[in-house]
Amino acid sequence: MADKKLKVVLAYSGGLDTSIILKWLQTEYDAEVVTFTADLGQGEEVEPARRKAELLGVKPENIFIDDLREEFVRDFVFPMFRANTVYEGQYLLGTSIARPLIAKRQIEIARQVGADAVCHGATGKGNDQVRFELGYYALEPDIRVIAPWREWQFASREQLIDFAEKNQIPISKDKRGESPFSIDANLLHSSSEGKVLEDPAQEAPEYVHQRTISPEEAPDQPTIVTIGFEKGDPVSIDGEALSPAALLTKLNQLGHDNGIGRLDLVENRFVGMKSRGVYETPGGSILLPAHRGIESITLDGGAMHLKDELMPRYAKLIYNGFWFSPEREMLQALIDKSQEHVTGTVTMKLYKGNATVIGRESAHSLYDEDLVTFEEGSGSYDQRDAAGFIKLNALRLRIAAQREKKLAR
Amino acid sequence: MADKKLKVVLAYSGGLDTSIILKWLQTEYDAEVVTFTADLGQGEEVEPARRKAELLGVKPENIFIDDLREEFVRDFVFPMFRANTVYEGQYLLGTSIARPLIAKRQIEIARQVGADAVCHGATGKGNDQVRFELGYYALEPDIRVIAPWREWQFASREQLIDFAEKNQIPISKDKRGESPFSIDANLLHSSSEGKVLEDPAQEAPEYVHQRTISPEEAPDQPTIVTIGFEKGDPVSIDGEALSPAALLTKLNQLGHDNGIGRLDLVENRFVGMKSRGVYETPGGSILLPAHRGIESITLDGGAMHLKDELMPRYAKLIYNGFWFSPEREMLQALIDKSQEHVTGTVTMKLYKGNATVIGRESAHSLYDEDLVTFEEGSGSYDQRDAAGFIKLNALRLRIAAQREKKLAR
Amino acid sequence: MADKKLKVVLAYSGGLDTSIILKWLQTEYDAEVVTFTADLGQGEEVEPARRKAELLGVKPENIFIDDLREEFVRDFVFPMFRANTVYEGQYLLGTSIARPLIAKRQIEIARQVGADAVCHGATGKGNDQVRFELGYYALEPDIRVIAPWREWQFASREQLIDFAEKNQIPISKDKRGESPFSIDANLLHSSSEGKVLEDPAQEAPEYVHQRTISPEEAPDQPTIVTIGFEKGDPVSIDGEALSPAALLTKLNQLGHDNGIGRLDLVENRFVGMKSRGVYETPGGSILLPAHRGIESITLDGGAMHLKDELMPRYAKLIYNGFWFSPEREMLQALIDKSQEHVTGTVTMKLYKGNATVIGRESAHSLYDEDLVTFEEGSGSYDQRDAAGFIKLNALRLRIAAQREKKLAR
Amino acid sequence: MADKKLKVVLAYSGGLDTSIILKWLQTEYDAEVVTFTADLGQGEEVEPARRKAELLGVKPENIFIDDLREEFVRDFVFPMFRANTVYEGQYLLGTSIARPLIAKRQIEIARQVGADAVCHGATGKGNDQVRFELGYYALEPDIRVIAPWREWQFASREQLIDFAEKNQIPISKDKRGESPFSIDANLLHSSSEGKVLEDPAQEAPEYVHQRTISPEEAPDQPTIVTIGFEKGDPVSIDGEALSPAALLTKLNQLGHDNGIGRLDLVENRFVGMKSRGVYETPGGSILLPAHRGIESITLDGGAMHLKDELMPRYAKLIYNGFWFSPEREMLQALIDKSQEHVTGTVTMKLYKGNATVIGRESAHSLYDEDLVTFEEGSGSYDQRDAAGFIKLNALRLRIAAQREKKLAR
Repeated sequence: MADKKLKVVLAYSGGLDTSIILKWLQTEYDAEVVTFTADLGQGEEVEPARRKAELLGVKPENIFIDDLREEFVRDFVFPMFRANTVYEGQYLLGTSIARPLIAKRQIEIARQVGADAVCHGATGKGNDQVRFELGYYALEPDIRVIAPWREWQFASREQLIDFAEKNQIPISKDKRGESPFSIDANLLHSSSEGKVLEDPAQEAPEYVHQRTISPEEAPDQPTIVTIGFEKGDPVSIDGEALSPAALLTKLNQLGHDNGIGRLDLVENRFVGMKSRGVYETPGGSILLPAHRGIESITLDGGAMHLKDELMPRYAKLIYNGFWFSPEREMLQALIDKSQEHVTGTVTMKLYKGNATVIGRESAHSLYDEDLVTFEEGSGSYDQRDAAGFIKLNALRLRIAAQREKKLAR
Repeated sequence: MADKKLKVVLAYSGGLDTSIILKWLQTEYDAEVVTFTADLGQGEEVEPARRKAELLGVKPENIFIDDLREEFVRDFVFPMFRANTVYEGQYLLGTSIARPLIAKRQIEIARQVGADAVCHGATGKGNDQVRFELGYYALEPDIRVIAPWREWQFASREQLIDFAEKNQIPISKDKRGESPFSIDANLLHSSSEGKVLEDPAQEAPEYVHQRTISPEEAPDQPTIVTIGFEKGDPVSIDGEALSPAALLTKLNQLGHDNGIGRLDLVENRFVGMKSRGVYETPGGSILLPAHRGIESITLDGGAMHLKDELMPRYAKLIYNGFWFSPEREMLQALIDKSQEHVTGTVTMKLYKGNATVIGRESAHSLYDEDLVTFEEGSGSYDQRDAAGFIKLNALRLRIAAQREKKLAR
Repeated sequence: MADKKLKVVLAYSGGLDTSIILKWLQTEYDAEVVTFTADLGQGEEVEPARRKAELLGVKPENIFIDDLREEFVRDFVFPMFRANTVYEGQYLLGTSIARPLIAKRQIEIARQVGADAVCHGATGKGNDQVRFELGYYALEPDIRVIAPWREWQFASREQLIDFAEKNQIPISKDKRGESPFSIDANLLHSSSEGKVLEDPAQEAPEYVHQRTISPEEAPDQPTIVTIGFEKGDPVSIDGEALSPAALLTKLNQLGHDNGIGRLDLVENRFVGMKSRGVYETPGGSILLPAHRGIESITLDGGAMHLKDELMPRYAKLIYNGFWFSPEREMLQALIDKSQEHVTGTVTMKLYKGNATVIGRESAHSLYDEDLVTFEEGSGSYDQRDAAGFIKLNALRLRIAAQREKKLAR
Repeated sequence: MADKKLKVVLAYSGGLDTSIILKWLQTEYDAEVVTFTADLGQGEEVEPARRKAELLGVKPENIFIDDLREEFVRDFVFPMFRANTVYEGQYLLGTSIARPLIAKRQIEIARQVGADAVCHGATGKGNDQVRFELGYYALEPDIRVIAPWREWQFASREQLIDFAEKNQIPISKDKRGESPFSIDANLLHSSSEGKVLEDPAQEAPEYVHQRTISPEEAPDQPTIVTIGFEKGDPVSIDGEALSPAALLTKLNQLGHDNGIGRLDLVENRFVGMKSRGVYETPGGSILLPAHRGIESITLDGGAMHLKDELMPRYAKLIYNGFWFSPEREMLQALIDKSQEHVTGTVTMKLYKGNATVIGRESAHSLYDEDLVTFEEGSGSYDQRDAAGFIKLNALRLRIAAQREKKLAR
């Protein structure tokens, strides 16, 4: 039918760039645009996006605004933290972990409204385009994907602004020029990239930070906080039970106030180049050592070592956008299996950038004072056993050394 | 021959415990004892050990005192740091990495003096007995090993003190009672374990710390320091070339002064139980992020990810005492191969417990501003390539999703 | 109470060695012995063990004889085959996988009869002692373990025979002398070790084989057989549904008849030395390629590669006796997660030692003829996508090569 | 300059397809074509390619024909076999391992003749395009790559034949129609893919096999052969020292004659789909178990297990085309390090498809009969040590089991 329009679900923030995309979809594709705006804890109101979408001609029934904060923390952030996940030794994956949820919700909406395509505003050089699109395809294999930044002909910021002006898209003053850096944010973290950060030899300026005060500005007195865990997930702070999003919000505040969670990193993108980012993960940077702390007394050593060896691979899958892949799910099954007894409380000291475990307690503890004491006495351990243990562990080394001697003769 | 005495090389610190062992070897085994005292940077004079050994009847030619600091840092510490090695996510292996060198030197001396046996003062519940003995056996497969703590009949501290008194071993006053904790130290770190630390729910008291002031006591002004690297090893500080031991000594001072490098950890011992230790690794805690920092711009992503995945295994081998094993040497070959271009400088900010990378620079850099800039322009990257890249990465996920749909029908 | 006897559950085969152990427990420990004899498909009657136990004075209520064949195959063999498990590239772990089940059942009986201890007949040089005892301890941490071969004073075969004769234990003629090799057998395999096999340069004599005819003796005509799988486990042969044990029994017959499943291996024991064994796993050697065959069309590539990388570790855990360990269970969770769609049929050709996949079919297939055909046409694949895919995969290699050129200038 | 022609180095087999490409480069790009034809042991004469190239107007100085067989086996095949490399459990990577050498030589020629571009004849759906191009880019980052199959407009076999006819390219009769399958071959293997093999449920027809007779056709008598190894590489057969290529040629003959080395596999391509191939690797299928055989007595267990765990990853790198990547080189360094003592001889029995190790011998053997014998006696092993070994290995399992009991109360 001639009048059948292409229907596209756009991940819409309400900001300038995705508003341009919205209009571009309408003009270039003559598309019926469905906007999806998620509250993932980015710290901005989402309701204004509704008005902007309406202004740009989106039908009310085509505007979707969801508060996904609890789902985000419960089903994405916490499962990831069960593995003590860091990418390239340091990055807490705050951007990466939000993408699959957005993709999942976009596909759900596409099914609901009978859309033909989905669209995102990620650029063609980054990881996010991969994360969005792998998510789309894994959930809806025949969906059409529109990636404006890879498709359109705009070659500069000026051309984009021109297009916006011609199409009556409101432009706030600070958006007219080139932004000195770009930001992504959600309840787990904020990231800053680009322009002023492009020389990795130069210290990141203080003003790029969004979520934390600097350690220097933080109070001179430490804050002590106790985090309760059940089966690997945090469930309470200082004895107060909190929902996942509420808990992370509170940890964020604590981290913010104590200058915790800044990371200045040059990382390897999936698409092949190195980039430099400044990440702030205040709550996550408390949660990571706290989780390790509760694991340290409740998790078996063999289990821990297996997890630790697989973590970099799990982190890479998330970073590269393979959340909805069989191998990520297999690793998750392995990780989740390990967390059955990771229950108890950890006391943390927060002080000027440091988040330090100072105590851990659990009814599930595997730590046994009797075993480690210098005095003999525990029935479970006979020091003489160590002789045999060492002898058999040494056996193959001795045989190899005997070979060396024999061959040297 | 009846008069052939057993000749034993003892790892001798000059302290009370190894002096008791020395005497015990003489009385229990009627042994000719050879003492070996190493300066590994533990921060104590080693010459007094000579006088004590003489006092206890060791012949001058049987007293060996060696300054091993440069060898320790060059051949053990730095190779380990090339891998960004941490055990159980956190421990910098300060004790573990010193043991193979002591074992190696003991074996060398045993060969030189024609000794029958070697002896160490590690207890029967810890990891160090394993590390020493695996080292001995790997280097000299038929050596006899004497481990007094596993053999003798002393059942309490009092009995040991009794034995010392009966044998005119000088006992300083503070050694009479049970020590509130025990210490191991070398140029890389000091560790504290036992007694007052045995309840992991209780914060470690300030007085157990040996090598660092607390973050709270550290200056209110950050210290900025630049570390130069060549092929993965640090070679200079603020432009001044330094020998390995001198460089680590200087980093230790910087770490000490800025409250950097404390770790309170419950870890899994090789012998099967959990134990709690307080570690201070001031210089190492600066070196680790600095090394990651120089790698971040000079090391290929594929190489980094391979290293990161193998690191926990490499760490475990060192922790468990398998330094002199074929698999540790294989991993070292892999790691060393990766470090060819890890050359350049990293600028660190040290402030109240934090050691933060704020800049990195290298003639070997793989970071390319042209590639990451938001503007098009670099010849190496065409954003349209990303479409194909994503499509083929998604292909198997799409096929699997199509299967789900087909089966659901 | 003085008359409280030690009660011991002995893994009792009814053979000479475990009969000696039974008597030795009675005489040396004055123990009340409970015998446990399992039918694991070793191919010997188990009922005679009852009469022998009675003869040796074991009370009827203390004699346990169980047919564990179905449990063995269903809960141990099949889960292991889901991972395509081989130790050191070749060994199908036929002995290793039976030990945890025996240990588990012994502990269950110990609880039921209120026994104080368990006892096994494995020697002090092998892996089986480890496998039994790790199983015991993992299930019943405070159980007492009696390992006669490590404890008693018998120093030679003759002394054992003497003891047997003195205690009226019947000795069949062929057991008087040293056996030329020793055998372990169950429904999965039989193994032969020792004496005539101790020189690894010498071919294993034909007569050590128990379960297979040689390829040379096998028929000149191939046998074609179709195996049906559901969620990773075989469930039918040539369309006939079979219970786990019945299915493996049938595969064993097919393997036997076609000379399939012999392996002559020098392997690394957990206790540190190398040993040589001859293994026969007729059914398993058909099942392994068949399982790979059904996976080849139903399992996603990423899932397969993850499984393949973890398999050696999983195999080592089973070989070393860690079936009942958290890390084996974690790996099992990962493996099992992957098998959801491993359903379909595989056609095998069995011929003189070869078990070859010649066809696979599945409603869950991920194989798509349209995609691989040389002609264009499939909607899922555009050859032009490959250009971008290659370009981005190459990007980091190009940047590194550019560095080399720049540095060479 | 207007008359500066594009100069392209084409991997030229002399066959119809690459002749079409040659002509297409001349007509479509107006290019000066340089042909490179390698003898990799594919079993076809390479000199005819010279005449064909000349016929198609290639200047004599632009025709390169190289015998690369020794380099291929020495620097690519043997290093790969040191790792016992198989992809997806079975495939010996015969095609994959040849691509980097061709790419390397093409780049060398491009430098020598000052060419602007390189060109290959691999299709747009397969792995080979990736392998060639990753090789090109890794060695010469700014080279231009022409991939005709992804670029040209020919949409069917007929259009190609038309083009050939119009351009006087000789076409042998059997090439007129669609080939029932396509072949790749070199000294390591031949592969067949496509058409008649596209249904994985159907047995591969006998006529697709190029390099082997079937097991059924093979002689009724086994062939016994002894292979000598030095540092992991085969160096002699039945005592006769042979160059790498000569040795592999001889093993190929032995494999061919005994029906050894056929594999019918559905595999996962790097580009995302599954494909079915029939591979014949007669010599390699003897070499793989032989190499495992010599390792079984000369390689330390810890080293072997590390290699085995990393092998799938190493295989995947080669399969995916990352031979010239830092991580492949790192793994190679690790693997090569392990092979120092892998020296000795292995006796193999070849019989109707089976290649079985029946004996291994080495001056570097770690196998020690004294250690495994049932009798006591060896100084290196005390059975009582096993008790302590087991106790400490069990400790963490016991502590975890005690926790379960405590929590169940």
